[in-house]
Amino acid sequence: MVPRRSFTIDTEKTTRTIYVLGTELTVNLNRNAPPQSKFFSIKCSPNVHYKITPQARDRNADSYPLTPNAVLIVTMDAVSKTANDSKLSVRYFGEKTEALGDALLHLTAVEISLDVDADRDGIVEKNNPNKGSWKWGPNGHGAILLVNCDSETTNKKTLDSEVEEIRKVSDLQDMSKMILRTNGPAELPEGYKLTMHISQTTSENVRVFRPRTNNNAFWSLYKNKLLKLFLKDYIMVVGTDMLTQKVPYLGGKTELEFFVEGLRFPDKDFDGLITINLSLLEPCGKGFPETPVFTDKVVFHISPWIMTPNTLKPVEVYVCSTDDNHSFLKSIRNLVEKCGYKLKICYEYMNRGDRWMQDELEFGYIDSPHHQFPVVLDSPRDGDLQDFPYESILGPDFGYVTRHALNEEVSSLDSFGNLEVSPPVTVNGKSYPLGRIIIGVAFPTATSGRNMTQVVQDFLWAQKVQAPIALYSDWLVVGHVDEFMTFVPAPDRKKFRLLLASPDAGYKVFKSLQNNGHGNAEMFPGLPEAISVNEILSDKKLQAGNRYVQNCIDWNRDVLKKELGLDDEDIIDLPILFQVLEEKKGARAVAYYPDMVNMIVLGDQLGIPKPFGPKVNGRCALETEVRSLLEPLGLKCTFIDDFAPYHKLLGEVHCGSNVLREASPFKWWNLEL
Amino acid sequence: MVPRRSFTIDTEKTTRTIYVLGTELTVNLNRNAPPQSKFFSIKCSPNVHYKITPQARDRNADSYPLTPNAVLIVTMDAVSKTANDSKLSVRYFGEKTEALGDALLHLTAVEISLDVDADRDGIVEKNNPNKGSWKWGPNGHGAILLVNCDSETTNKKTLDSEVEEIRKVSDLQDMSKMILRTNGPAELPEGYKLTMHISQTTSENVRVFRPRTNNNAFWSLYKNKLLKLFLKDYIMVVGTDMLTQKVPYLGGKTELEFFVEGLRFPDKDFDGLITINLSLLEPCGKGFPETPVFTDKVVFHISPWIMTPNTLKPVEVYVCSTDDNHSFLKSIRNLVEKCGYKLKICYEYMNRGDRWMQDELEFGYIDSPHHQFPVVLDSPRDGDLQDFPYESILGPDFGYVTRHALNEEVSSLDSFGNLEVSPPVTVNGKSYPLGRIIIGVAFPTATSGRNMTQVVQDFLWAQKVQAPIALYSDWLVVGHVDEFMTFVPAPDRKKFRLLLASPDAGYKVFKSLQNNGHGNAEMFPGLPEAISVNEILSDKKLQAGNRYVQNCIDWNRDVLKKELGLDDEDIIDLPILFQVLEEKKGARAVAYYPDMVNMIVLGDQLGIPKPFGPKVNGRCALETEVRSLLEPLGLKCTFIDDFAPYHKLLGEVHCGSNVLREASPFKWWNLEL
Repeated sequence: MVPRRSFTIDTEKTTRTIYVLGTELTVNLNRNAPPQSKFFSIKCSPNVHYKITPQARDRNADSYPLTPNAVLIVTMDAVSKTANDSKLSVRYFGEKTEALGDALLHLTAVEISLDVDADRDGIVEKNNPNKGSWKWGPNGHGAILLVNCDSETTNKKTLDSEVEEIRKVSDLQDMSKMILRTNGPAELPEGYKLTMHISQTTSENVRVFRPRTNNNAFWSLYKNKLLKLFLKDYIMVVGTDMLTQKVPYLGGKTELEFFVEGLRFPDKDFDGLITINLSLLEPCGKGFPETPVFTDKVVFHISPWIMTPNTLKPVEVYVCSTDDNHSFLKSIRNLVEKCGYKLKICYEYMNRGDRWMQDELEFGYIDSPHHQFPVVLDSPRDGDLQDFPYESILGPDFGYVTRHALNEEVSSLDSFGNLEVSPPVTVNGKSYPLGRIIIGVAFPTATSGRNMTQVVQDFLWAQKVQAPIALYSDWLVVGHVDEFMTFVPAPDRKKFRLLLASPDAGYKVFKSLQNNGHGNAEMFPGLPEAISVNEILSDKKLQAGNRYVQNCIDWNRDVLKKELGLDDEDIIDLPILFQVLEEKKGARAVAYYPDMVNMIVLGDQLGIPKPFGPKVNGRCALETEVRSLLEPLGLKCTFIDDFAPYHKLLGEVHCGSNVLREASPFKWWNLEL
Repeated sequence: MVPRRSFTIDTEKTTRTIYVLGTELTVNLNRNAPPQSKFFSIKCSPNVHYKITPQARDRNADSYPLTPNAVLIVTMDAVSKTANDSKLSVRYFGEKTEALGDALLHLTAVEISLDVDADRDGIVEKNNPNKGSWKWGPNGHGAILLVNCDSETTNKKTLDSEVEEIRKVSDLQDMSKMILRTNGPAELPEGYKLTMHISQTTSENVRVFRPRTNNNAFWSLYKNKLLKLFLKDYIMVVGTDMLTQKVPYLGGKTELEFFVEGLRFPDKDFDGLITINLSLLEPCGKGFPETPVFTDKVVFHISPWIMTPNTLKPVEVYVCSTDDNHSFLKSIRNLVEKCGYKLKICYEYMNRGDRWMQDELEFGYIDSPHHQFPVVLDSPRDGDLQDFPYESILGPDFGYVTRHALNEEVSSLDSFGNLEVSPPVTVNGKSYPLGRIIIGVAFPTATSGRNMTQVVQDFLWAQKVQAPIALYSDWLVVGHVDEFMTFVPAPDRKKFRLLLASPDAGYKVFKSLQNNGHGNAEMFPGLPEAISVNEILSDKKLQAGNRYVQNCIDWNRDVLKKELGLDDEDIIDLPILFQVLEEKKGARAVAYYPDMVNMIVLGDQLGIPKPFGPKVNGRCALETEVRSLLEPLGLKCTFIDDFAPYHKLLGEVHCGSNVLREASPFKWWNLEL
């Protein structure tokens, strides 16, 4: 719809105004007509066009009857060379042919367009008709904004979004370009001005910068790209405590570049949408404020924080070095080097003995058509590793975000071993090309009260593009979903399998061993914990506990089947037994032997906790079983001894590592939400 | 999709479980099969049914090959009379015909359904397939909840929602019924229990009550409707600090009634949706927590707060009595009595001289299929009238809601003369059958900083069903949209007209008077302010100010045309002049003579501020002009003298009154959002 502006002309004095190309001036011809006016005629410069509604029949060659609702609609098709260079006049007549008065209008035509990359191709196109709204999907539209949550500096770090100025020219890369395109006379008629404005709420979420333009020589060099701008050459236009500010009109055909910086991720109280307005204000005479005569607006959506499933290509593996994990570290290094990925070790001065690299942080990324970078989500867990994400990961083009628990207790369920994401799935026709986030909560029995903090849950749900699923993980002592499930790539079906820990599958292996005459073979061979297959199978308490555990996992299995659209054929049960411990707040489970589902997935290479199962012909029966389940999918199993430094402390390989992965090739704005 | 439950059977001991009608038990036949099992056969009670996937061909009459993915799907079609009265057994065979083992399963079939009025007809139907989700529109579904924001008591008032217990049995009318329908044996098998549960977030927004059932005799009387329940007979099941609680299974075919109480209106951080879950928990043996085996859920949407446009039928008119408004009050009483509506007077002991009844509060209502009542929104303005909404309006079936400004300055723009609602409109094919809310803000020039508080704006936007429009009202000293616009009913076109104050229309009247020889006629005749038409027309400062005002109103006119889909023919310009005053923070406008657009609309009767215009043939020319514009629409104009007690204090009839109106016949849940 063409923007229309109601306008009044006057027979008592000449009216002057600016006309913005692409709009319509609607003049109520009756409003200021001289009394007794019955007819009118119109004259105008050749570049001024008009029509009259309701459509009027001429009285003679060039005059029309002045009906009660007569409206003149004025348009122009080219910008003015000088101020007020176009004219229109209305002559009013009574019943006779002598004129009752002339209303003169002097027009200055300009072109004004606040532009963004609304078609999401990385280029700021001119005046996209959809720039003022935002729509999801491949046929959607609307510009994209990144939260400037990295740090251009590595010394004395702060998030760039927490600093009111631009700190390095490279920081502009993290912002979205917005261009004010104007065309018209060298100067606007006196008293007119352009202002950019945002709402109070928006000012918490965005800042807009532009190059300083206070010097014509400077500006001319800049326009001709003969000048490199320095930090001091950029100023903030709108942002915190600055809701509106004048922006320069530079004359002729000009493009003034703005840089838009996102400050906040979508959250429970912020849908991620940001509107920026530009108005042309008209002077109303001495002593009166200006009034707006034209407003243009653009809408951005902040990129959500997006997690990366196990099926995406690894970039770098993170692991802690402690005084007791030397051989584990060596195994991980071997595996990672074999795969050709980078290994990043967090040393003890930083980790202070906290080895749970999985739990302190989650890697994700933010994405826009013009730029993309990884962002670490720092858990409210805050163990001794708590400084690592900020101190060692945050940096240029590596963002950081965290949520602090307020008036809530942080529990073990807030560790990010309890935050995973599925590969892409389609569920009852609804597609989740970025997968679905998976967390563990106390639901549905909920008496104990351990839960993931609401601030983190709110954050995850607000990102929208990986609609979370809440599983029931509070039945575990540690309480993390990665204790009973993971995803591995597969060549067929949905291109992945869900692996679930299964006590039933575990007992099946042990019963089969007994049945085949290996009842005396020892679990944990050579370790102080050694125990025979027969002894394990005769432990009624262990059995009862595992029945309970299987029930808990089966509940989650049913939820995952439903929410990820999985068939039984998409799921592989790994033979893992649990042990139920009596705790103050009730019975909870831990893995009885190294929990093989708690693996690191690096492409087709799996680093699996070495289970120390009973040996048959010198081979671990549990490893054999797991290989037989996974190798047909083209997966390579490396069993890693994590017994002393991880398993005995209630974690395994996955808990002790983290993987930075490539971003998905799927663009989040192409989702149909 | 039928809910499926993964389940394990065992050859070593008989398994017992509850089967919930309408679900499927899926048994992985391989999981606990004896080693070397190759085939299996199945026997079961006549009311137990099964199928096997993948579809298996019989080896002979009654045995099937045990494929790696063999799954048994069990269903039942009638509830059990006693616990464990139905059986199923699986016999495993090796290559030969002798059995390797039998897995026995004892089943108790029950029917469980947590029910709500998901089809919105006022009746809680049984197990609506859509009860677990919520969808807008006439083909939508999902139950409705009211915020229990009235007060059953009139002494020592508190909002009912702020009291943890039910205060009168009548309070149950304000809640939504929810029924737990169960059918099965007299008692559940030992250790099973039903629990209701909600999330932490939901617990801030809802409470659920039920009758006490601790006594069988009591319960039997209640079930047979032979007993009247008293307050002490109701207990809270879930709500604040109570996320989960056991609910009784009453045996046989029973309906247990619950009462669901909404606590919070939708807001920036709450989308209005509430989920309530019911789970059946299964015992897992001594020392283990129960595990869930079946979960049912229902979803409610809280009714938004809905405003009533001028086109809805009035019920009651509110006005203040002050020591100086006796004759005004009499005029209002005459008008209201003539129309046959009720008049409610707020006396001076309550209003303490604050006469701005429009500004302190806004009437609206909440609606559900089972109940509806008016709700007053109390402004954060808090003048001397501030106690009136709570003390005098809140009561049984008259709700109350307010928002308090936090860290924000409350300005004149927070008065609810600055909060209006349009009649129903359709804009570019999008229909707003409840109209659109209209507020005034500082946008788009925004330098002065006066604005409606963010908390109120957030509240209004979050109600969703009357998508707000922000106008520019900060150019006025008082800054309320009702100073330049109102809506009146009309028989044709869109069934209403938008009336706008128009200085141009005002000057047109005065010029016409001058032209017709009435230049010496006096504005404000007989008042100390008396001034001739000629003098008014020669006042260049007044003229310049009105040019500015017309520009400001025209900006709003263009926004209203666009956002309400109006044509010029839907708008009537009323002849009103303004005066621009120099204020500290710049020039702002007030009405020069009584602002006729600030009228009270009671059906086709309009109570209009008496303008005290110049008299022609003994008749006020401004009244004559306004009558000529409005009477053709069937509207009756009564001009009310508000000069001394209202106009001189910068307000008029509308500012000094308020109208409680009937709710719209359109049901908000039928909106297509």
